[in-house]
Order: sequence, then structure tokens, then C-alpha cells
Amino acid sequence: MSQLDKAKTHLNEIPFARPDYHRHHRKGVPEIILADTKGTDRAMAIAASFLEGTGRAILSRVPDELARALSERYGETGYEWYAASRTAIIRREGTAVRPTGGRVGILTAGTSDQPVAEQAAIVCQEMGCFVRLVNDVGVAGLHRLWEPLTQLLDEDRVDVIIVAAGMDGALPSVVSGLVDVPVIGLPTSVGYGMGGKGEAALMSMLQTCAPGLAVVNIDNGVGAGAIAGLIANRAAEARRASAGER
Amino acid sequence: MSQLDKAKTHLNEIPFARPDYHRHHRKGVPEIILADTKGTDRAMAIAASFLEGTGRAILSRVPDELARALSERYGETGYEWYAASRTAIIRREGTAVRPTGGRVGILTAGTSDQPVAEQAAIVCQEMGCFVRLVNDVGVAGLHRLWEPLTQLLDEDRVDVIIVAAGMDGALPSVVSGLVDVPVIGLPTSVGYGMGGKGEAALMSMLQTCAPGLAVVNIDNGVGAGAIAGLIANRAAEARRASAGER
Amino acid sequence: MSQLDKAKTHLNEIPFARPDYHRHHRKGVPEIILADTKGTDRAMAIAASFLEGTGRAILSRVPDELARALSERYGETGYEWYAASRTAIIRREGTAVRPTGGRVGILTAGTSDQPVAEQAAIVCQEMGCFVRLVNDVGVAGLHRLWEPLTQLLDEDRVDVIIVAAGMDGALPSVVSGLVDVPVIGLPTSVGYGMGGKGEAALMSMLQTCAPGLAVVNIDNGVGAGAIAGLIANRAAEARRASAGER
Amino acid sequence: MSQLDKAKTHLNEIPFARPDYHRHHRKGVPEIILADTKGTDRAMAIAASFLEGTGRAILSRVPDELARALSERYGETGYEWYAASRTAIIRREGTAVRPTGGRVGILTAGTSDQPVAEQAAIVCQEMGCFVRLVNDVGVAGLHRLWEPLTQLLDEDRVDVIIVAAGMDGALPSVVSGLVDVPVIGLPTSVGYGMGGKGEAALMSMLQTCAPGLAVVNIDNGVGAGAIAGLIANRAAEARRASAGER
Amino acid sequence: MSQLDKAKTHLNEIPFARPDYHRHHRKGVPEIILADTKGTDRAMAIAASFLEGTGRAILSRVPDELARALSERYGETGYEWYAASRTAIIRREGTAVRPTGGRVGILTAGTSDQPVAEQAAIVCQEMGCFVRLVNDVGVAGLHRLWEPLTQLLDEDRVDVIIVAAGMDGALPSVVSGLVDVPVIGLPTSVGYGMGGKGEAALMSMLQTCAPGLAVVNIDNGVGAGAIAGLIANRAAEARRASAGER
Amino acid sequence: MSQLDKAKTHLNEIPFARPDYHRHHRKGVPEIILADTKGTDRAMAIAASFLEGTGRAILSRVPDELARALSERYGETGYEWYAASRTAIIRREGTAVRPTGGRVGILTAGTSDQPVAEQAAIVCQEMGCFVRLVNDVGVAGLHRLWEPLTQLLDEDRVDVIIVAAGMDGALPSVVSGLVDVPVIGLPTSVGYGMGGKGEAALMSMLQTCAPGLAVVNIDNGVGAGAIAGLIANRAAEARRASAGER
Amino acid sequence: MSQLDKAKTHLNEIPFARPDYHRHHRKGVPEIILADTKGTDRAMAIAASFLEGTGRAILSRVPDELARALSERYGETGYEWYAASRTAIIRREGTAVRPTGGRVGILTAGTSDQPVAEQAAIVCQEMGCFVRLVNDVGVAGLHRLWEPLTQLLDEDRVDVIIVAAGMDGALPSVVSGLVDVPVIGLPTSVGYGMGGKGEAALMSMLQTCAPGLAVVNIDNGVGAGAIAGLIANRAAEARRASAGER
Amino acid sequence: MSQLDKAKTHLNEIPFARPDYHRHHRKGVPEIILADTKGTDRAMAIAASFLEGTGRAILSRVPDELARALSERYGETGYEWYAASRTAIIRREGTAVRPTGGRVGILTAGTSDQPVAEQAAIVCQEMGCFVRLVNDVGVAGLHRLWEPLTQLLDEDRVDVIIVAAGMDGALPSVVSGLVDVPVIGLPTSVGYGMGGKGEAALMSMLQTCAPGLAVVNIDNGVGAGAIAGLIANRAAEARRASAGER
Repeated sequence: MSQLDKAKTHLNEIPFARPDYHRHHRKGVPEIILADTKGTDRAMAIAASFLEGTGRAILSRVPDELARALSERYGETGYEWYAASRTAIIRREGTAVRPTGGRVGILTAGTSDQPVAEQAAIVCQEMGCFVRLVNDVGVAGLHRLWEPLTQLLDEDRVDVIIVAAGMDGALPSVVSGLVDVPVIGLPTSVGYGMGGKGEAALMSMLQTCAPGLAVVNIDNGVGAGAIAGLIANRAAEARRASAGER
Repeated sequence: MSQLDKAKTHLNEIPFARPDYHRHHRKGVPEIILADTKGTDRAMAIAASFLEGTGRAILSRVPDELARALSERYGETGYEWYAASRTAIIRREGTAVRPTGGRVGILTAGTSDQPVAEQAAIVCQEMGCFVRLVNDVGVAGLHRLWEPLTQLLDEDRVDVIIVAAGMDGALPSVVSGLVDVPVIGLPTSVGYGMGGKGEAALMSMLQTCAPGLAVVNIDNGVGAGAIAGLIANRAAEARRASAGER
Repeated sequence: MSQLDKAKTHLNEIPFARPDYHRHHRKGVPEIILADTKGTDRAMAIAASFLEGTGRAILSRVPDELARALSERYGETGYEWYAASRTAIIRREGTAVRPTGGRVGILTAGTSDQPVAEQAAIVCQEMGCFVRLVNDVGVAGLHRLWEPLTQLLDEDRVDVIIVAAGMDGALPSVVSGLVDVPVIGLPTSVGYGMGGKGEAALMSMLQTCAPGLAVVNIDNGVGAGAIAGLIANRAAEARRASAGER
Repeated sequence: MSQLDKAKTHLNEIPFARPDYHRHHRKGVPEIILADTKGTDRAMAIAASFLEGTGRAILSRVPDELARALSERYGETGYEWYAASRTAIIRREGTAVRPTGGRVGILTAGTSDQPVAEQAAIVCQEMGCFVRLVNDVGVAGLHRLWEPLTQLLDEDRVDVIIVAAGMDGALPSVVSGLVDVPVIGLPTSVGYGMGGKGEAALMSMLQTCAPGLAVVNIDNGVGAGAIAGLIANRAAEARRASAGER
Repeated sequence: MSQLDKAKTHLNEIPFARPDYHRHHRKGVPEIILADTKGTDRAMAIAASFLEGTGRAILSRVPDELARALSERYGETGYEWYAASRTAIIRREGTAVRPTGGRVGILTAGTSDQPVAEQAAIVCQEMGCFVRLVNDVGVAGLHRLWEPLTQLLDEDRVDVIIVAAGMDGALPSVVSGLVDVPVIGLPTSVGYGMGGKGEAALMSMLQTCAPGLAVVNIDNGVGAGAIAGLIANRAAEARRASAGER
Repeated sequence: MSQLDKAKTHLNEIPFARPDYHRHHRKGVPEIILADTKGTDRAMAIAASFLEGTGRAILSRVPDELARALSERYGETGYEWYAASRTAIIRREGTAVRPTGGRVGILTAGTSDQPVAEQAAIVCQEMGCFVRLVNDVGVAGLHRLWEPLTQLLDEDRVDVIIVAAGMDGALPSVVSGLVDVPVIGLPTSVGYGMGGKGEAALMSMLQTCAPGLAVVNIDNGVGAGAIAGLIANRAAEARRASAGER
Repeated sequence: MSQLDKAKTHLNEIPFARPDYHRHHRKGVPEIILADTKGTDRAMAIAASFLEGTGRAILSRVPDELARALSERYGETGYEWYAASRTAIIRREGTAVRPTGGRVGILTAGTSDQPVAEQAAIVCQEMGCFVRLVNDVGVAGLHRLWEPLTQLLDEDRVDVIIVAAGMDGALPSVVSGLVDVPVIGLPTSVGYGMGGKGEAALMSMLQTCAPGLAVVNIDNGVGAGAIAGLIANRAAEARRASAGER
Repeated sequence: MSQLDKAKTHLNEIPFARPDYHRHHRKGVPEIILADTKGTDRAMAIAASFLEGTGRAILSRVPDELARALSERYGETGYEWYAASRTAIIRREGTAVRPTGGRVGILTAGTSDQPVAEQAAIVCQEMGCFVRLVNDVGVAGLHRLWEPLTQLLDEDRVDVIIVAAGMDGALPSVVSGLVDVPVIGLPTSVGYGMGGKGEAALMSMLQTCAPGLAVVNIDNGVGAGAIAGLIANRAAEARRASAGER
């Protein structure tokens, strides 16, 4: 077999990417399996592999057929389904997420922002954080904003707030002008016409007049959840540390 | 002289554009002379021509040298100077603007939006409208918004509100969500980085969640003033008509 | 039940957004239900909820199946269907729109702009305005423009004109150069190649040489109708006020 | 001397680009020397070289100092100066342009479009065409359009019309909808805010509803003149040929 | 019936746009019916209307079902089918296009550019021009260019050349550098990645180093054909006039 | 004095924006005075006003003349100068920043990113945080990265890392893939050609493969500092609270 | 038959583009048949034509039906199938690729980049090069990079490395900073939100801080393979030449 | 001294970035000092440091004052000046570049591309390559291309060709279609209007129809030189190796 033949053979034998089981350990952020571009069989296999490797598998953008397969296979044991973002979590018994004490608030400007916000919520929860998600707070009618903000700040005492908004993307700036915790802007691809795939929302957040706001990319609920979780857990760690020291 | 020679001669003899003296009459909107790209002598000549033709000349973006020349020549008679937008108005005696009864409110998000907002204010005033301009209302600190809005709506009973904003461009959406008069969004080229030449502000306004908002181009204070003046004067005309009928 | 469990439960129990029944009262602009991304059952439920809450439900982008369901359920009582924009209105008996006396003209450059223009027309009508819509006025052949403009200005005495145009977006500038009422430019996503999703039309309108023109986003017929309705109703209010005073 | 040394030497000895004296002969379009980025001395040398090589040198964007130098050196013999576009032409005696009979009309929407339009006019003239340039025809006030169009079509019987416009770029579409000769759209960088460097004008022309319009790049007066000259000269050639055949 | 009711009724009774039968007479350019967004029945009706009104109907982007219907209905009398651009022409007997003597050459860079180029060819033919279309001339391998160019220039003596190209859009510049007739660049949406929807091709043509090139929008074969036809017919008219004078 | 006259007067009497002295108290983020667009006199006045109102004034982008004036006036008492970002701080005696215990690390990819990074550092310091800034860590030569990262994580135990990078913007992704604290990407306008004003860096950060990274706008050092300071102070507050409880 | 009739006939008789059998000979790069837009029958015919003309046919983006047809027809003789990029190669017996000795390394940042990378690999192999492709090297976790780089440089001694990456596009810069062979950046359309169709990756590579990196367009695996193959074969030619001289 | 004071002190004591003396050794590509944004004194110091550290300093974009200072200080010993790109090289005696035998050809489309092309040439030369640079080859007049291409391929037997082009960027595609060595496209910021800062040229090169072309960013002459030098030296190494083996 010539060197060239070996190379050719080699090309068709490239192994599938090995899952990075250790990311949660190394980074504190769990890996999410994007299920929509993989077939049902392959997605089931990867999910099983993660379940075995880490005790948990999180699948997002789950198609109907896969949802049924997951439900049938794991429905009796540890299966959770989040409808808005089409996320499924399967979990080995005895591997419940350990609460960290981190506290995250999430607001959405409209109901269309809910799926992306839910992604962020799930990531934070799987990182052990308490999450409060309030939907449809709007900017066209600011009277709807005061009650949930008070809830998040005074009652839930959140460490960070994610604000998801499409269209004009104005809500994160408005919120960031009012609160003294870090705010993560999560632009969504809700809109129409010029700037309507989330660009207007993203740019408006990048141009915010209100200091204390950083952003992630359009529809990147996972990314917003990851950094919010890290921020909350950093504060929680300090709280736990001091509690433990006593 | 050959046809071609005549053509060549013709090319160097093109007359300067004749000013459209009749626009105010036809459209109800006065013409503004952009003074920054014309030399002092030529600008003085055009101003004199308008003064003679229509009783008034409005010059915007006036350079220092021209401002001095205008002040010297017309300072004693009918010269007005607006510093923020560098606008000068000269006026023949007995040609004061006749108040129409139209009522226009103007808000700016920050102090940097003032020059453009002042342009809009001047156009509205020269169309005979009452104008209330409130600066630096901000979106990062909405507490500053309530008082001026109450003033405009309850006390001044404005027919239309222009909201000038750069950066995140969020203020017009916030205002439009709260009031029941038409709102004209006036994006300004205040900002930095991506979208910082006013694109973010413009797009955010175009994507507004709050119905009842239309926009003009970035820094187009004249255009915002023109449409707001037309809106206010349409309502004022109805008020005057009925008053006259009695 | 631990705090984290409660949070998780909470995530799946977020209530649907409550409809803002009071917007028409607060803003004078009715809410439109975008029906294309909701299932038939859910859309029917929301429609019924609005019908009960406000006496009227307006649904746009209605799919075939939903149109049939609405027609079957409400066809006998108060059902209206607008084919071009696929808009349905259902109405409780005795809740006909009260005419305000506001007067709105709408022009389209081509037949493809009709669906978006119809959206604007419906919003204005539901705000109580008289609406005249003239289709296919074109800019390539200005001879077609004079007759409808004369109709709108001299006969209908409209308070404001919406001009819908895609492609080169030239018609609103041409109209605004000729009339003395405010003009709302409504760019549509009709076109091809560079700038063909409405960007060329939008930008051309933003760059208009003719003062008195403001714009809404591409295909935003609802937004154009809302501001035009507010403008017309402001003038109409003055007319009614004076009439009532006598 | 090593090969590498020779290469290095070679790098500093690259000859200046040889002027393409034969382009006019090959293409029928004269070469224009862009003078603004060359020093006075070098520009004078290149001009002299063209004068000797082809009997003519055309310099555009001529700085003050160079204008003075050219005027001093050639003012007595064959020097022409076009102020708007800062173009200078020097000509050897006995080398006047031979009229071809081609006929070109040029319209500008506003006075700011004049410098670019003049460039186009000069190129056409130097290609032997008769040129009629009418300035400031506007789109905001179409009443100004009829007279010059009638002049160009009925009296001058032009073979092609160049229409220069910035801002909304609407005029070329309007003209192309009315005439039956080819129209060349010449967008100019006149404008402000979004699309204000000529992009809106260019895109609007590309999206024209009126067939029979092609465009050149923003501010490319030379390019517009070149193709218009070729179009007119093609028709003129046919006219001459038939005249000659008799 | 109240005024408002009349308005509502009016909204659903807007007549379909009347076809502009007179455009060919006025402009010399025939109207093309875009058939893909109209249903078969409506397209058949419009085609019949044009056939009756002008003796000819040209339909582009014809779907399969409509093609069959047209073929069945008109196949025996005057039906022509152009497969690449899916264009159908139906023609009343005795209404063949009268040759004008205009001469148009069309080159495509690749086979994928053929459908758009065919559109241009059909428009030119229906304007009475002789058309020579040469496909797949390429820029990656210029040896393929000489033969067709020689054919077009020396044998066919074309008045104008349309060059259709996607991807790098280099061919029109190369051709325009070699010929002395006007060239119309026709960018096509052939490509991939950045600039791959025709923007790279369009921009490259706008930036051409070779004078004598103007462009139309991406995939605008009809527009390219219209202006090329006007150019060629202008020259042909001169040739005919002189022939007729003798 | 007529209403209109009053309005006009009003227009020239708009007060300067009142400084928001309370922002630091409300948000925990100090206000920064952008000094480059204000004259020396006005900037000195605003600085004095802040000094009196809050005990401190921070001026960024300070021109030479203002720097000299500040140094002369406050040099003896409490004047600090940061050369890279041209930032000046003046401070009333007895108003030193109280350390919070928050800990922030800052890395720059290249030396050109230093001015923007220094802005971020100053904001964090003025919020009471400890700051470690390491310059010129590079991505083209990752061997330079390990040492500073170890310093930040193991020795300084920072709560958050700001990574400033222009050009390819790759460093924040690389860092975020390696650490378990939140990372704030700070794109800078360092670069050339396409994407060279910071767009490439910003987009690359928005597209990061490494979860745990959020971004601020190009060159927005103040914004990066503000959110990093809030994150670090949230953790520090927890540490202090627990320390205080004991 | 009139000239016009001949032209019309001519239009429907344009021959299919003749395949450029000689490209491999002339350029050293084989032609790839894009199969997805051609029907099965036509693709089979073209493949057969190439097989006869050059002894080999390479088809990419092969649809299922065509894959089956190719497999049935050529499966017994010389059929190869590459699943990730859906590429098929058929080969006449005795026409195996002659190894050149060129050596190419290919890295991908993630598994989604594999199909495009495989295209590049196939082109290099068909140009006679040895190819080593290593998948999923990542930038978020650089520890995965060292081993494959060592393999490529020390063991395989590659002449050039192709690095395929989507999203942040950071890997090629990182690699180019570490190696001393030329690197070809191959951006892929993997991503989301702003810049997510490969623009962020492309721009980041264009802005690389690490000298020695050039790029091809997004998803242009064939182009990356072609230039890498040329580079490697140039070096290989020198190695062979010297070997042959002995 | 408190921790915070130390941090503050630390901020003003950040050392200048240490030059990466070892890059040439590690990468085979020399570092270039961008001199235009550094003051004369600092640039002289850095140059001296490089001269001492590596025996050579290369400074690009050298301002007049610095050029004089360098010439005065090093003019007698080892000073070279390249006028077009304003590049200076100073060299310690006995440190002449060792020829590698690598062979690079460089073509420019126009004279304006020369400065960028010269940068590339200098980098290649300093990497030890033989360089042949031919200016002003043009695409508008391909007859000028054959002679230099023949020289490069047949006589100089170059390993790689850099093609610098602005405007339409067509030349690299044309060249790549004709030669069998790798081609590096170097777009320059020469142009006007849409796409005129090099974007059109860059995109056209990215969209090339001709395989075997990769590109660097706009005006990145250094980057083009670096990869071309690496390619040529890879081939040269093989030639030397074989020569040495004998």
C-alpha cells in the first residue's frame, strides 16, 4: 500500500470528534449538544455517551422524532423537556445539579425572545444557579418593568441580569441604567426589514449609554447563560467560602 | 464659431442655480442655505438674494468668518444667531414669522444631540410653530424623563414630539410607548465603534416596538423639523379654521 | 422541594404573555396579532380573548387553515377578510369603529406594494380614519401620478399621505416635492439584486431632497398606518373640538 | 554583483509607467491625468509628455499651484480651464477636436452634482461630441424638468442622456421613464447620514423601475462621459457614413 | 352607508393594475410579465390581455404548470419557449417583430450566466435587434476570448456588447479594455461566500479600470437588454435614415 | 412678548446639561468627562464642578492645552496623569478611593491596544478594584501567554479578565478557552483593510467558540471597565460581607 | 430565413459548455463537477465524458440519486465515495494518480468544518500530494493543538498547512504564529448571528497578526486545496528534480 | 503603600513591549517596524535596538523627519531607502541577507499599486529571495501582460507570483488562469465610490474563477511578501538540499 493510498484510506477513517467530557470540570460550563443537524440515531448515541461519561446530556434544538425517542428511552428515569427552546436533559440517577447559590435574573422584552432566554436559563440552572425568568417586560410600556425589577433586585437579590431583546434592543440599556449589578445583553433575531435579524438590537446594545452592560452574539442564549453563570458562581463561591470558614 | 466651440463655451457659462424662493409658499417649509461649503462672499450674496426675495435668509453650518460678516452687515437690523447649530437668520423688518398655533416638543437624549435638535427647532419656529426643546433627558436614568414629558403633554399640549438620540437610539421608542401624539425619531451621529455614526440609533428607531414613530435620516434636523412643522400646522390649521368660523 | 427545583419548575410554568388590551385606549393604536407563527388553535384562542376583551381582534398574515377556522366560527356575525395582506378582523356586534374624521391617503408605486399598503390602510381605518388607497401610480410614467394626487388633495382633503414603494423608492420623494401635507414613506421589500430587499428604497427615502418626508422600516405597513392615523386624528380632533364648541 | 544585489538595485530602478498614448486611437476615449496626488513638477512633466505624444493633455483635480504653473506655461497658446471640476486642458496648435456629430445631454439634480457632471461633459467633448449640460433640475419640484427635457430631445436631438444625482438618486429613474434614448445614471457622493456617500443614489439607480438605464460608479464622471461618448459616436458614425455614401 | 364603510368597501375593490400596453410605443422597450408569483389562471388571463392589446405577450420565470397551459393553448399558433430563462412568448399572427438593423453582442463568462444572458437576448430581439450570444467565454483561460470577440466585432459589427459574469466579474473589464463599442456589464448572482450573490461581480464592474463600461443590477437581464437595445437601435435608426434618404 | 418670541428666547437659553453627580452612588460606576470636544475653559469648569460635587473628576482624551491647565491648577494637590489614554484625575484631599477587594485582570494582544486597556484599568481602579494589566501578550506566539495567565489566576486570583485585542481579535477566545472566570472581550480599532477598524475583532469575539465571553463595543474601554468592576465588586462584596459577619 | 429568425434559432441552439479537459495539464489542478444543480442524467453524461476524456471524473455535492446511479454503474471498477463532502470519484483503470511527493497538512477547528476540509483534501490528493487531515483541533482548548502540529511538522514534514475554521476563525492565526511553513486559511460558513455565515472567520483571518497566512473565500475547499497543492508540488518538484539528477 | 496604590503605580510603569528578536529565526519572516505613529526619537531607539539585537532594522511608513535622522545616523554605513513605500533598512556590517534561492515574481495592475507591492518585494528580499517586480501591467489592455509573464515564468522561473491590484481587482484572476505556480492576490485601496477602498478588489479576488489563488488583506504588502517568501523558500530549500546532497 503506497503512501498516497494510505492517505486516502486515512481520509475516510477520520474518527468522530471525541466529546469534551471534561469541559464542565475545567470551565464550569456544561457542553450542549446541538441536535438539529444530527440524525436521530447519531444524536441518541452521543446523548448516551455523555450520559455515561458525565451523568448528564443536554440537547438543544431537538426535532420531534428525536424528542419522542428520548422520551421513550429515558422518560421513566431522568428526562426533562423545555418546550420553548426544544431542549431536553437526561440525567443519571443521583447526579442532580448541586446548587451553588449563584443567582441569575433573566428578562425578555417580548414573548418571541422566550426560546433564546430559556436556553440561557437552562445553562445557568445546570451550572447550579437559581434562575428567575420574567417574560414580555416590553419597552413600549415601561410600567410593566418596575414590578419584575423590584422582584429580581430586592427579593431574589440576583448577582447578574440577562436581558433578551430583539427589534429595537432598547430594554437592556433601560435596565442597565437602573440597576447596580452587571447586565448581559442578549440580542435576538426578532424583527423585520433593515436590521431585523437582530443586527439593530445588537448594535443598539453595543452603543448603550448605560455603563455596566456587555453583550453576546444574536440568539446566543447558551453564551449569555455561560457568562452569567460564571459571574453568579464567582459571587456565590465567595459567599460559600465565608460560610464555610466559620 | 463651430457647434462644438459653442458647446464648450456653454459649459463655462452655466448660471448658478436660481434659489427656489417659492418653496415656503408651495410647501410651507423654508429653504435653508448650507453655508459651510460656500465662500464668505458667495454666501453673503445668496443670503442677500434670499433676504430680498423672501424677506428672510436662514444659513446653517456658518463658519466663523461668515458669522462675523453677517453680524457686521445685519447686526443692527434683524440678525439672530443660534450657537449650538451655528445657524444665522437675517430678516427684513416687518417680516416676523406669523405664529400658526402649531405646537412642537423636542427632546434630546444627550447634550451632544443638541446641535441637530436645534436645527429642527429653528425650522419649526420659522414655520410659525411654538417649540419646547428639553435637553439631555437620557435613557440611562429614566427618572429624568417624566417631568419634561408631563410638561410637553399636559402643559404645552404639543401636536408632535421630535426625539433626537444617538448611540443606542432607545429614547424615541421609550417616549413613543408612553405618548399618544406622533413621534419623529431623529438619529444623530453620536457614538463610537460599530454602528457609532448613527447607524445603530437609526436602525433601533426603525425597529421600534412602539407604534407611532417615524424617522428621518441621521443628523437630518432640518428634515425632522419640516415634517413636525407640517404635522403641527395641519392640526393648528384645523384649530384656526374652527376659531375663525365662529 | 429545593430552591433550585422550584426554579426549574418555574421555568416551565411561565404564563403566556398577557395581551395588552389597553393599548388602543392608551395610544390610540390597536394591537395587531401576527398569526403566521402561531398554530390555528392558539391563534383562535388569542383572537377570542381579544374579541372578549376589546370587542375586536385584528389578525394579520393569516394562514389558509386559520382563515377557514375564523370564517366558520365568525363568518355569520362580524368577520372581514382582506385578501392582499391576508388580514382578518372579527368584531363584536355593536362595536363598529367610530369615525374620527381623520383623513389618510395612500399611494403605491406598483402592484407588489399593495399587501403592505393594505396593512397600513386597515390600521388607519381601525383608528377611525377615512382612507383612500390608490395603487400602481408608478414613477416610470409620471403621467399616472397627477390624477390620484389631485383626488387626494383637492377632493379628499387628506391630512397625511403614505407612499409605499419598493425598488428605487423614488415615488415618496417625488410626491413630497409636490404636496404640502406630511408624507410617510413606506419602503417595501420589492426589488432584486443589490439593495433589492428594500434597502435601496429605504435609503433613497432617507436621502430625500424633498422636506416633509419621514419613513418607517421596510414592509412595516402597521407602523406607517399607526403614525399616519395619529397625525390625521390629531387634526381631526381639532376639527371636532371646534365643531363641538359651537 | 550577486543576483540578490541585482534584484535590490532593480527595485529602485523601476521606470515610471509609460503613458498609454494610443488609448484614444484604440478605444476612442482619451486618457485623463489625475493631478491631485502628483507633485507640480511631475504633473507638468507628464502633461508635457502627453502634449508631445498626442497633441493634448487633460488634467483633472488640478491643485492651485499646478493650475498657476499650467496657466503660466501654456496660457498664451492652448490652455482651457474648467472651474467646477478643476480640469485643465492644454492643446498643441492645429489639434482641435474634430466634431463627430455625436450628441450628448447631461442633467444634474442639484448644483452640488455639477463638478462630476462637468467631468463627463469634458470627456464627451474631447471625444468630439456636442454636449448640452443643464444644472439643478431637481426632483423636488418636477416642474423644473419639462423644459430642459424638451430642449434635449426635440431641439438638440441627443443620442444619450447622462443624469447626475446624489441623495435620493431619483432623477435618473424619472427621466428614464419619460425618454426613449439610453440613459446613463451618474450617482454622486452628495448626501448625509445613512447612504449619504452616494450609496443610496447608486442603489436607487440600480433598482430603477424604468428600463433603459445603466449606471457607473459614484462620482465617476469620466466613466459616464466615456460610455455616453461611445454611444453617441456610434450613432454619429452611422449618420456620417450614410452622409458620406451619398 | 357611512363614509367609513365606503372606504372599507373601497379597500377590497381596488382594481388590478392595468397593463401599460403603450410602453413599447412610448419607450421602445416591451413589458415583460413576471409569471412566477402569479397563479396559472391569472397569468393566462394577463397573457391573453397583452396578446389582445399589443399582439404579443412575453412571460419570464414561467413555472412548469403555466408552461404546459401556454403550450396547450397557443402551441399551434405562435408559441416560443426559451428553456434557460424559462421565458415564453406568444404572438398573434402577422405581428412578427420588425428587424431594426440594431446589432447586439452578448458574452457570458460561464454557463451559469446563461439564463440571465438569455433574458437580455430576448429583450433585444423583441426590440428588433440582431443578437449574437456566445456562452462560457471565461476569464480563467483568456485564449477562449479572442475568437468570439473577433466574430462580434469584425463579422457581426455589433453596436454594443453585453457581458454577463458572476463570481469575480472580471470579464466585462477585460472586454471593455479591448473593444471600441459601448459595453454593458451584467453581473449575475453566481458565486459563493463573501460577495457571492453577485456583489463582488457588481462592485468589480463598477470599479473597472477600462472606460466605456456601464452596468445594470445583479441578474437584471431585462434591464441590460433594454439599454443595449436602445443603444443599438439608435445607431440603426441613423443607418436606416440615411439608407432611406437615398 | 409673543409666545413665539418666548419660544425663540427659550431656545438660546437652554441650560447646559447638569452633571449626574449621583451616578457613582446609584450605579457604582463613576462618570467620565470626554474632554476632547470641549474647549479648555469649559472642560476646566466642568472638572471643577465635579470636583466640588463628588470629590473627584475623571477626564479622558485630554488635549495638550487642557493637560497643562489641569496640571498647573491641580498639580500640587491631587492630580494624576495616565499618558497612554491621556486621562487625568483630580481629587479632593481625603477622598481617596476605598479599596473594595474586587480583583480585575487585563491583558492586551498588542502594544497598540494599551490606551483603550488603560481606560478600562482606570475605571476599575476608581471603582475600588485591584487591577493587574499585562501588555502585548500576543496570539502570534502563544508562549508569551502562559506566564501572565498564571500570574492572574494563581497569584492575583482575579474575579474577571478583560482581554483587549484588535486585528484578528483571537486572544479573548483563546483566553476564555483556558480560564474559569468570566472574560470581557474589548475589541480595539487596531487593524487595516477589510474589518480593520475593529469590526473583525468584534465579530470574531461575538463568534467565539469558548463559552464565558461577553463583549463591549470597539474601543469602549470605559464600558469594559464598568462591567468588570461590577462583576469583581459583586464577588468582593460577598467576601467582605462574610468577613464582616465573623 | 431572415437574419432575425436566424438569430432566434441560434439562441435556442447554443451548445453546452465544452468541458476543459486540458486544465489539469495546463494548470496542474483538476476540474471538479458541481453535481447538485444538474439532473442525474446530465451529471452521468458529463461524468462519462470526463472519464473518457481524462481518465477521471470528480463530482462534488452529489445528491443521493446520483450517488446510487454512479455506484451502480461504476461501483465494480473505479468508484470512490467521500461521505462528508459528498464527493465521488470515478477512475479508468490504469489511471491512478501519480504521487508527486508534495505534502499537505489540513487542520479543522471543529467537526462542522470537516466537509469543506475534505474537499480540500481530495483536490490535493488528486494533484498527487500526500495529505494528513486532523479534525476538531479547536481553539477553545489549545492543549488539543500540540500533538497534531508536531505530527504534521516533525513526522509528516508537510510543505503547507490548510487550516479550516468557522465561527471566530482564530485557529489559522494561532497556527500561523507557531509554524514556519505557509498557511492557507479556509474560513467556513459555520456560526450564528452577526458574522455567522463565515464573514467573521474570513475577516479575522484577513486581519491576522501572524505573517505567513493567506486565505481563500468562505467554504472554498476546492480553492484551498488547489493553491496548497500547487505550493506542495512546487517544493516536491525541486525534491524530485534533485533526486533525478543524481 | 496600599495594594491599590501599588496597582496604580504599576499602571504607569508598564514596560514598553519587548521586540520579538527571534521571530525571523522562528518563522523565517523578519519583523517590520511601523514608524509613522511613533515619534522620531522613539523610532530611532527601537531601530537601534533591533540593529543591535538582530543586525538589521526594517522601518516602513517612515516620515520625512525620521528619514533624515536615519540617513544622518546610518547613511555612511548600511542605510537603504525605498521611496515608493517609504521603507528604510539599516544593517550592521557583515550581516547581508544570505540568498536562499527562492524566486518571487510581483506584478502590479497600475502605478498606484507600487508602494504596496514594494513592501512585499522588500519582505521577500529580506527573506533571501530573488524578486522581479513589474509595474503597471494593467487589465485594460492585456497586450501589456504577455511579455512580463513570459519573463517571470520562462526566464526567472519564479516559484510564486504576487499580483497587486486595486479597483476591479481583475488582474490576479487573469494571471492565475494562465500560470501553473501559486498566485497571491494583493488587493490595494486604490479606487473610488462603492467598493473603492479595496473591497471590490478583495472580493473579486476571493470570488476568482481561476483555482490557485489565495489572498491577503487590502494593502497588506508585508503579509503578501511573507507568505510568498515562505512558499519560495520552501521550494528553494528542496533545491539546496538536493544540491547539498550531491
